[in-house]
Amino acid sequence: MSGEADFIDLLRSFATHPAARGLIDDAAVLDVGGVRLVLTHDMIVDGVHYLPADPPEDVAWKLVAVNLSDLAAKGAEPLAALLGYGLGDAEWDGRFAEGLRATLDGFCMALIGGDTVAMPVRAMGLTAIGTSEHAPSRSGAQPGDDLWVSGSIGDAGAGLAIARGADGPDNLLQRYRRPYPRLELGQALAPVVHAMMDVSDGLLIDAARMAAASRVAIAVDLEHVPLSPDLVAFAGDDRAARLAAATAGDDYELLFAAAAADRHVVVRLSEETGVSLTRIGAVSEGENLSISHNGEAVPLPEKLGYRHG
Amino acid sequence: MSGEADFIDLLRSFATHPAARGLIDDAAVLDVGGVRLVLTHDMIVDGVHYLPADPPEDVAWKLVAVNLSDLAAKGAEPLAALLGYGLGDAEWDGRFAEGLRATLDGFCMALIGGDTVAMPVRAMGLTAIGTSEHAPSRSGAQPGDDLWVSGSIGDAGAGLAIARGADGPDNLLQRYRRPYPRLELGQALAPVVHAMMDVSDGLLIDAARMAAASRVAIAVDLEHVPLSPDLVAFAGDDRAARLAAATAGDDYELLFAAAAADRHVVVRLSEETGVSLTRIGAVSEGENLSISHNGEAVPLPEKLGYRHG
Repeated sequence: MSGEADFIDLLRSFATHPAARGLIDDAAVLDVGGVRLVLTHDMIVDGVHYLPADPPEDVAWKLVAVNLSDLAAKGAEPLAALLGYGLGDAEWDGRFAEGLRATLDGFCMALIGGDTVAMPVRAMGLTAIGTSEHAPSRSGAQPGDDLWVSGSIGDAGAGLAIARGADGPDNLLQRYRRPYPRLELGQALAPVVHAMMDVSDGLLIDAARMAAASRVAIAVDLEHVPLSPDLVAFAGDDRAARLAAATAGDDYELLFAAAAADRHVVVRLSEETGVSLTRIGAVSEGENLSISHNGEAVPLPEKLGYRHG
Repeated sequence: MSGEADFIDLLRSFATHPAARGLIDDAAVLDVGGVRLVLTHDMIVDGVHYLPADPPEDVAWKLVAVNLSDLAAKGAEPLAALLGYGLGDAEWDGRFAEGLRATLDGFCMALIGGDTVAMPVRAMGLTAIGTSEHAPSRSGAQPGDDLWVSGSIGDAGAGLAIARGADGPDNLLQRYRRPYPRLELGQALAPVVHAMMDVSDGLLIDAARMAAASRVAIAVDLEHVPLSPDLVAFAGDDRAARLAAATAGDDYELLFAAAAADRHVVVRLSEETGVSLTRIGAVSEGENLSISHNGEAVPLPEKLGYRHG
C-alpha cells in the first residue's frame, strides 16, 4: 500500500460520521437543521493536476470545475466556495483571480472566504458548498441496474497529450483544460438513479470503485463506451484506443446506475438536458469489474486509471 | 502593496455576496434555508505557520485550532471539517492523522471529507463548518464601547522564541504549539458584543483592523493588556515588553467591543465561563488605532503584528 492509501485508511478509521460517507463518496452530505448540504474540497497542484504552461485562467476553471463535478455527482445545486491559495508571481495570480471571477460567475457561485499563503510550490484548493435533496451515493448500485455514462470518454486524455505537444484538435485540448461539470444533468438524474459518481480518474477505475462501494459486479462493454468523433479521428476506435480512452482521467462525466425499468426515464432526461447518455454496461450480483469488447471478454488492464499515491 | 494584498483586493472586487462579509471577517456567514452557517478555511505551511521540528500532533492541533478560533470569534458551534493535505513522509503523516483524530474528538468535530495530494512542500488546509445564531462581525464596534480581550496576550510569541531555542517555561511553548480556541466563550459573548474577532496576527494589528472595519477610533491602554505571570517572568512587563506582547501573533484570544452599559454582563460571562476578560481600551468616533501607557501617548510601532505577504 502507498503512503497515501495508508493515510486515507487512518482518516477513515475516525471519519465515522454519516456525513463522511466513509470518505469513499465524491462529496460529504451533511444534514443541518432540515437542510441537506453537499460539501467537497479538492486541491490541484502545479505539475500534478495541470501543466505548468497551462493558462492561469484555465487552471482557475479547472479548480472550480473539478469541485463542481463532485457536486454534480450528488445532484447538488452549487451555492458558494472558499479558496485556499498558494501565492506565486503576481501576474499569474492576477490572471488566476480574473479567471476565478469569470468561472464562478458562470456557475452562479459566490466566493465567500478562504486563505492565501506564501508557498514554494503553486497549489490551491477549493471548498464547494451546495444543497441537494437526493444526493445519491456511489454505493447504491443494484443487481439488474443498467450502467450509464454521460457525454464522451477519453477526450481529456487526448487533450493532455495535445497539451504536451501532440498534434490534435483544439476541441480535445479544451476538454482537458476546461472540463464541464454536469450540474443540470446531475440534478435531473439524482431522483432517478441508484448510484452516481463523476468520472475523474478514468472510466474503468471509477466503475470498479462503484462496484466495490455497492458490493456488486459491474460489466462494461468497451464497444459501447461513447467516443467523440474528434477522439476517433485522433486516436481511432479499435480495442486499444477504447481501452486508452476508458483508463484516461479528467473526463468529469457522470457515471450512474439506474433500474432497467427506468430506461425510458433516463432517455427522456437525456433529451430534456441535451446531454447524450449511453448505456455502457450492467450491474449484477457478485463483485469486481469485468470488461468485454464485441462479445469477447477482455482481461483487465494493469492500470485502470489514475491511482493516487 | 504586496502581491498578496493585490490578490486579495482582486478577490474582494467580486466576493460581493453578503456571506463573504467583504472578505474582512474571520469567517463567512451563509444563510441557507433558515440555518446560519459559519465557514472558514485556513491553511498552514511548514516553516511559515509552524516550525519544521514541531511535533506532527501539535501541527494537527494547530490546524484545527486556528480554524476553530475563527468559528469562536463568530460565536459558532463547530460541526464538521474537511481536510486538504499535502502528503510527506509516511511516519510524519501517520502521527499527524492520529493527532487530528484526537483533536477533532476533543472538540466534537466530525471529519467529513477532503483531499490528499502529493506536494514537494508540506502544507495543509482545513475547512471548518459551524452554526451560529448571532455571528457578530468585526465591523460593529460603536463609539462609547469598551474594548475587551480574553485570557493573556504575548504568551505564544514567547513560546515561538522558546521553540526556536530560547530558555523558558513549557507553559509558554504550549501556548505557541497548542493554542486553545475560545469556543464556549465566543458562544456566550456573541449575543452581547457589538464586534468580535480573534487575535491571530497580533493584538495591535487586529485592533487596528477592527477600527478600520468599524470606521471608528480605538484606543488601547498598554498598561491594561493582560500578561501572564509566566510571560512577565520570561520577558518583564515594561513598555518594550508590553509592545512586544501586543505585536506578537498566535494568541487566538477573542478581542471584542461591547457597550459600556453591558460591562456587568461581560463580567458575569467571564465568571460563568472561567475565562478572564480584561478591558484594555475604548472605542470612540474617528478612525485609526492609538495606544498609551501609564497615561502617556505611545507612538505606534512600525510593525503592529504579523502582516501577510
